[in-house]
Amino acid sequence: MDTTEAKTKRVYQFGNKTADGKGFMKPLLGGKGANLAEMSRIGLPVPPGFTITTEVCTEYHELGKEGVINVLRPEVREGVKFIEDIMGATFGDRDNPLLLSVRSGARDSMPGMMDTVLDIGLNDTVVEGLAKKSGKPHFAWDSYRRFIQMYGDVVMKVNRHVLTDTDVFEEILDKMKDEKGVKTDQELSTEDLKKLVSLYKERIKELTETDFPQEPAEQLWNSIIAVFESWHTPRAIVYRKLNNIPEEWGTAVNVQAMVYGNMGERSASGVAFTRDAATGENIFNGEYLIDAQGEDVVAGIRTPHQITLEGSKRWAKLAQVDEEERKKNYSSLEEYMPEVYQELVKYEHELEDHFSDMQDLEFTIQEDKLWILQTRNGKRTGEAMVRIGMEMLDEGRIDEVTLLGRIDPKKVEELLHPIFDHDALAKATPIAKGLPASPGAATGQIVFHSEDAEIWKADGKEVILVRTETSPEDLAGMDAARGILTSRGGMTCHAAIVARGMGKCCISGAGSIHVDGDKKVMTIDGKVYEEGSWISINGTTGHVFEGKIPTKAAELTGNFGRLIELADKHSKMKVHANADTPETARAARDFGAEGIGLCRTEHMFFEEDRIAAMREMILSEDEDGRRKALEKLLPMQRSDFEGILKAMEGYPVTIRLLDPPLHEFLPHDETSQKEMAKNLGITLEKLREKVDDLREVNPMLGHRGCRLGNTYPEITQMQARAIIEAALNLKSKGVNAKPEIMIPLTGTVEEFKMQADIVRNEIKNIFIERHEEIEFKVGTMIEVPRAALVADQIAKYADFFSFGTNDLTQMTFGYSRDDIGKFLPIYLDKNILKEDPFEVLDQEGVGQLVMTGVQKGRSTHPKLTVGICGEHGGEPRSVEFCHTVGMNYVSCSPFRVPIAKVAAAKVNIQG
Amino acid sequence: MDTTEAKTKRVYQFGNKTADGKGFMKPLLGGKGANLAEMSRIGLPVPPGFTITTEVCTEYHELGKEGVINVLRPEVREGVKFIEDIMGATFGDRDNPLLLSVRSGARDSMPGMMDTVLDIGLNDTVVEGLAKKSGKPHFAWDSYRRFIQMYGDVVMKVNRHVLTDTDVFEEILDKMKDEKGVKTDQELSTEDLKKLVSLYKERIKELTETDFPQEPAEQLWNSIIAVFESWHTPRAIVYRKLNNIPEEWGTAVNVQAMVYGNMGERSASGVAFTRDAATGENIFNGEYLIDAQGEDVVAGIRTPHQITLEGSKRWAKLAQVDEEERKKNYSSLEEYMPEVYQELVKYEHELEDHFSDMQDLEFTIQEDKLWILQTRNGKRTGEAMVRIGMEMLDEGRIDEVTLLGRIDPKKVEELLHPIFDHDALAKATPIAKGLPASPGAATGQIVFHSEDAEIWKADGKEVILVRTETSPEDLAGMDAARGILTSRGGMTCHAAIVARGMGKCCISGAGSIHVDGDKKVMTIDGKVYEEGSWISINGTTGHVFEGKIPTKAAELTGNFGRLIELADKHSKMKVHANADTPETARAARDFGAEGIGLCRTEHMFFEEDRIAAMREMILSEDEDGRRKALEKLLPMQRSDFEGILKAMEGYPVTIRLLDPPLHEFLPHDETSQKEMAKNLGITLEKLREKVDDLREVNPMLGHRGCRLGNTYPEITQMQARAIIEAALNLKSKGVNAKPEIMIPLTGTVEEFKMQADIVRNEIKNIFIERHEEIEFKVGTMIEVPRAALVADQIAKYADFFSFGTNDLTQMTFGYSRDDIGKFLPIYLDKNILKEDPFEVLDQEGVGQLVMTGVQKGRSTHPKLTVGICGEHGGEPRSVEFCHTVGMNYVSCSPFRVPIAKVAAAKVNIQG
Repeated sequence: MDTTEAKTKRVYQFGNKTADGKGFMKPLLGGKGANLAEMSRIGLPVPPGFTITTEVCTEYHELGKEGVINVLRPEVREGVKFIEDIMGATFGDRDNPLLLSVRSGARDSMPGMMDTVLDIGLNDTVVEGLAKKSGKPHFAWDSYRRFIQMYGDVVMKVNRHVLTDTDVFEEILDKMKDEKGVKTDQELSTEDLKKLVSLYKERIKELTETDFPQEPAEQLWNSIIAVFESWHTPRAIVYRKLNNIPEEWGTAVNVQAMVYGNMGERSASGVAFTRDAATGENIFNGEYLIDAQGEDVVAGIRTPHQITLEGSKRWAKLAQVDEEERKKNYSSLEEYMPEVYQELVKYEHELEDHFSDMQDLEFTIQEDKLWILQTRNGKRTGEAMVRIGMEMLDEGRIDEVTLLGRIDPKKVEELLHPIFDHDALAKATPIAKGLPASPGAATGQIVFHSEDAEIWKADGKEVILVRTETSPEDLAGMDAARGILTSRGGMTCHAAIVARGMGKCCISGAGSIHVDGDKKVMTIDGKVYEEGSWISINGTTGHVFEGKIPTKAAELTGNFGRLIELADKHSKMKVHANADTPETARAARDFGAEGIGLCRTEHMFFEEDRIAAMREMILSEDEDGRRKALEKLLPMQRSDFEGILKAMEGYPVTIRLLDPPLHEFLPHDETSQKEMAKNLGITLEKLREKVDDLREVNPMLGHRGCRLGNTYPEITQMQARAIIEAALNLKSKGVNAKPEIMIPLTGTVEEFKMQADIVRNEIKNIFIERHEEIEFKVGTMIEVPRAALVADQIAKYADFFSFGTNDLTQMTFGYSRDDIGKFLPIYLDKNILKEDPFEVLDQEGVGQLVMTGVQKGRSTHPKLTVGICGEHGGEPRSVEFCHTVGMNYVSCSPFRVPIAKVAAAKVNIQG
Repeated sequence: MDTTEAKTKRVYQFGNKTADGKGFMKPLLGGKGANLAEMSRIGLPVPPGFTITTEVCTEYHELGKEGVINVLRPEVREGVKFIEDIMGATFGDRDNPLLLSVRSGARDSMPGMMDTVLDIGLNDTVVEGLAKKSGKPHFAWDSYRRFIQMYGDVVMKVNRHVLTDTDVFEEILDKMKDEKGVKTDQELSTEDLKKLVSLYKERIKELTETDFPQEPAEQLWNSIIAVFESWHTPRAIVYRKLNNIPEEWGTAVNVQAMVYGNMGERSASGVAFTRDAATGENIFNGEYLIDAQGEDVVAGIRTPHQITLEGSKRWAKLAQVDEEERKKNYSSLEEYMPEVYQELVKYEHELEDHFSDMQDLEFTIQEDKLWILQTRNGKRTGEAMVRIGMEMLDEGRIDEVTLLGRIDPKKVEELLHPIFDHDALAKATPIAKGLPASPGAATGQIVFHSEDAEIWKADGKEVILVRTETSPEDLAGMDAARGILTSRGGMTCHAAIVARGMGKCCISGAGSIHVDGDKKVMTIDGKVYEEGSWISINGTTGHVFEGKIPTKAAELTGNFGRLIELADKHSKMKVHANADTPETARAARDFGAEGIGLCRTEHMFFEEDRIAAMREMILSEDEDGRRKALEKLLPMQRSDFEGILKAMEGYPVTIRLLDPPLHEFLPHDETSQKEMAKNLGITLEKLREKVDDLREVNPMLGHRGCRLGNTYPEITQMQARAIIEAALNLKSKGVNAKPEIMIPLTGTVEEFKMQADIVRNEIKNIFIERHEEIEFKVGTMIEVPRAALVADQIAKYADFFSFGTNDLTQMTFGYSRDDIGKFLPIYLDKNILKEDPFEVLDQEGVGQLVMTGVQKGRSTHPKLTVGICGEHGGEPRSVEFCHTVGMNYVSCSPFRVPIAKVAAAKVNIQG
């Protein structure tokens, strides 16, 4: 071993109120490891252990198993010794054995994604020692049985050796329970457990041709390696993709002394939240299970009890459990172990005080002794995120900058999701009730498998994923579904946690629903619902309804309104919206838009009464004919513009001149063509000839944008006239209209100059005709790569630039948005593309052109107004980029305005 | 007038063996003005005069007519005084009048493009003085008649006031000739001419409501202004576009004393060349007309005589004129005026010695006194350019660098034009014979009007433009035609000069042909040829043939071969060729290509026996099916590659992997679809479904290029295997194959890496299988804008870059090459685009990306080989650009290889 290697610290110890690491060392120790260190430092009862750093995960992929064990061995040995000293027990000792757990711990929590092995150190002799030492042979053998099952699955990958989906061990276990006529694992006798152990070991030998390892050190090393390996499982990769976690980060490994919640009636395991993760209410809450390990709570197999009495009563009401039964079978921890409960409350206060954020903690009670296993900033819904942030601000725990820093702009979207229409909801009768696991409302068709959810969604359908319970394998399906409904599980089951993380509506534990995934049906009170049936679910109340229930927009007041005010206060960029109609413009204003960044005029031409005149214009043989048709369109366009300018009174409205290829406006079916030929007084053949003439091989790159305006200047004249006359009409009514005219698809300075001249001349004429003037701007889209490259020239004549990053992405990548479906899924799958560049701006490539465009533009026109109006204008990371390159505003769909505002504020305060 | 104005010298005098200007001052004085100054300096008899600078042309467009006259007046006055002093006559004086000419003179000669006014200073009284002074009233009145006609047309634009195409004055003149029963102008009596003058003046008054100006100063100023104006006539603009002359250059104006070639039998006008402008032969030659002004020679109305006896005899043979008639009616200047001829020969030697280049001079003999009116470097055919250059190099007149500097790469192309197949030609009987005005061979369909030539060409037809004579208005039509045939005019007529300039085959003065443009027929010996009939013309011999005559490639030896050797010696860049077949590869080698820069593999799939396997591959449901079909294709591809690698033995062959969207390979007509469905054993519906599935909205931006190879890696594997196995097969036969594998349409580094890995792995396997290795390279096209932007990343893994500037232009501009026809003509017309960016590389926009790509690529891979394989690789200015950005090679069509070589050498020697 060389000296460099020796200097690298790979293992950080914690326990007994001391620690090598600290809370801020998440990149190195992972979230769990850093928090264990921090908790130990502030005096919480953490089972002692050590953390192997995330850097070793990367090292592992270079050095391989043997290599990494070699460099780790000395420090791991010291770490085990440290634990042994504190726990007064010895790893592998048959009389006084120490058992260990090995858990993953990435920088950002990835719940349920990666592997864990518990009870390491047990073997055929140690189990006897444990039985003797604890005086609980049943517990010892149950632990050994669990250990073999977990190790067999996670480390030895036994289940990969069979073709069926059923778990090898569960199969043996179920058979045993059947034979013994019992329902739960706990009812099995110690002898049954011993038998199980030997059956498990046989099956392992049979399938893997390897003996279950008896050597504790071997068990430990293999478990550590398995955790490193689990960083690369498909489900972990999917999760990282969904959550933008870089592959390079790696995971840390936490090795800790085992503590047991399953040592009988005075033992328990639980999870707790310092505030309500769904609503954000400042109320301590959580769930626990008596005589169980932590996994049992999360797995959702037994219905957990509430920690607080208040919570327990609330739960009973929802679950329709009467007080007597509640007390008997579901008593709260507050009632069941009042002292331990008080200690837990003390710690949850300390933790929230220490971290100044809502904590999600795991604990185990081993024979009346409380251990805190983990704490982390709790995942929460968008609503909870905003409420907790605002209340902590009010409590003086955090400042505005910290608050904004904690707001995830993507989650802001959840608050904007529609909720069920109140009246419709009042009339609807629920067909079932479950736990309100993740708030919101969703309507969709039932599917029973994740793959189906993905397929149906790809077909444009809205689906609700209905399952008995979900597992990490269901991730992609959950992402595809509008909502999730499970018949089992509690508020902290897999489905609930993941759905809240996704901001997706979810009901868990709806016990009256029977789900038969194989037959693809669910049955409620004897009524059968097949795949494809419509249901509606309310994640805020837990109610399930038959059919579709209309939804309405969320309200944007209270904490949400305050958040948006704060965002405005802290951001440099303005947020405009893309809107083509007065209605959308008004909606955008409600969402806080301070202008229209893109008003597409072509949509106006598709309406019944206009399309005829538009077609007449397109099919005219000469300018005179076009002018005649345009005269019919002028008053219609003018009234459109009056509407939208009025709706945005006082704010700029950027109106883009006609953009799409003319072919799009022509009729392509025979009936319409015949009718049109008749209207125009020409033969059907002549009409078809015209239509064919206008057809293009690559319309995206064809005769469109300012190429239309420069070949048919009369169109530009008409539109400029309609806009300015509309503004003048409004002015005379005392309305302050601020029109900005935008030239699309500029590629050369000459193109822009010619269009801008036409516009400015027409406006000059209008001002002379009407003896009055109004302020206006003339600018351009920058959406053709060449425009960005010659932006210095164009900027000399333009009042503003608006980056059209949709088209810019199409041309910079050479991807047709209409055709990308043929290879994008494969490209994402093979990691050629990290994300869809039409969703998240490609900063590396397209971003270079945007930066060039901004810099060159400002080099000749320092006060040039610059914005973006592509779909990216509402995507948080893209908004960040826009701020970084110095844009004045972003423009996005009205719905995304609040998201953009928060993103803009965050990037500004982060400097 | 302020002091700055006073300092600007606007007028440069010359004459009497002195001059203010010098020959190198062409940008300021124009070509004609600078040469007049230079000739005067070296002692040639130049009619005295002065040049108004090109800067004043620009000033005129700012100051307007009155403004520019104000700033010019003092210097023009001095200039006129200077001429008066030398000529001993006074401008406007009725007894001893000085007459002036006003001629344009751009930096580069634009023959026939711009306006000229002669005989300025004549009016109703001065004409009488001139008659008296010269003793030739007929001459005086003929001059006045001509002056009014020219001034009326050029300055007063009389012909714009009538709707017919006939010239207002020619109409009156023709009527007069009819009345008098004469055929030529000269036959009219002095009284007739007086009558004509008064008829001309009446008609002018009638049409313009203005009197013909009697004031000489007014005549002079208006003529000067008319020349400035003529810089902006449509035909001048077309000419500049065709010849890449910037609009900003402007024209100079030359004001000179009039000298007369039309003062009777001892007067003449002519043009002469120091060497043969068609073949380059070192032989003095030219044409003259007795009793004529220079315009008469160029206009081609009378058949001119040859200057030298030898030339005259040669001409007679071609024109089938016997010696007696020749002597009588077409005697050479050498015979007719031996002394003047000797003086002229002396001057032509002096001029060629002085300018070290072939000169084109104009002269006038006024009553036995020789005046040299103009000299300039003579326009010449490509063949003459090369021969003159080489011979002057051999004569020690110029060095290699000067020689290359004078080679116009575009004209090199002429030498590569096919000539008629010798055997076919020997069998063909000419139907008519004219003058061999511009060498080369052309076959096409007859059209009689320039507009028709343009229309037919746009329809993809090959046409020969047949006219009585051509005028500058015919420029666009001549450009559109394959060749030009006129029934009138000499070797220096408009058609001849322009055709030589264009490198286009032309026969002029084919007198046996009767052309009726209105009826669109030509008649030869009673046989009628209608529009659309096929003819072939040989511009080297003057023969016209019926029907099509097969052509064969030009020979590339002699002077041409030496030129290419010189180019290779003086250039840094290599020139490769684009070729897809062994035949083309061999042709490319013959043209001097030192490698194949682009071998497109997809063309190989379209052949009868392959397309079936290709379609089978495309329509396979899975990878297995595709692999089966690819196995069939492998041996075919391998043999293709063997052929091409063998043809280019010793030189690199860059093979691009499959590029087009798969849809292109599928059958679209019902018959083929049915057949194919049968072959594949599927229903027609199923097949159509598949075909529809693959259809794309914008195929240019769709599933093509490396997107295919990355979604179907087995295609890449097959192609890599075919290439390397072919090379190994050749190696075993002792052939040195140098394969380079090129990935198309790379946009991200991951895309390239994945493809390159597939290729390199497959090759590794082949090397293992065959136990032998070969050198190869793996590189990429840079044709997607994003690839240029991230070239630093890509270059780390690539052996070479090849810029695909066709696609790069499509994506940078957002122009679909298939659809650009809808707006490109309008864009060129409106000057939005200066030229077609698919023809000439857009250095400003696309060039920026190329430069970025090269620089970034070399930043991480300093020894990266860089080339270009778009159409631009053979376009001279684009080749220059490629040199400037530091490319290693350009690749173009075989035909353009010599052009590229010359362009590459020129830019290198010019530094």
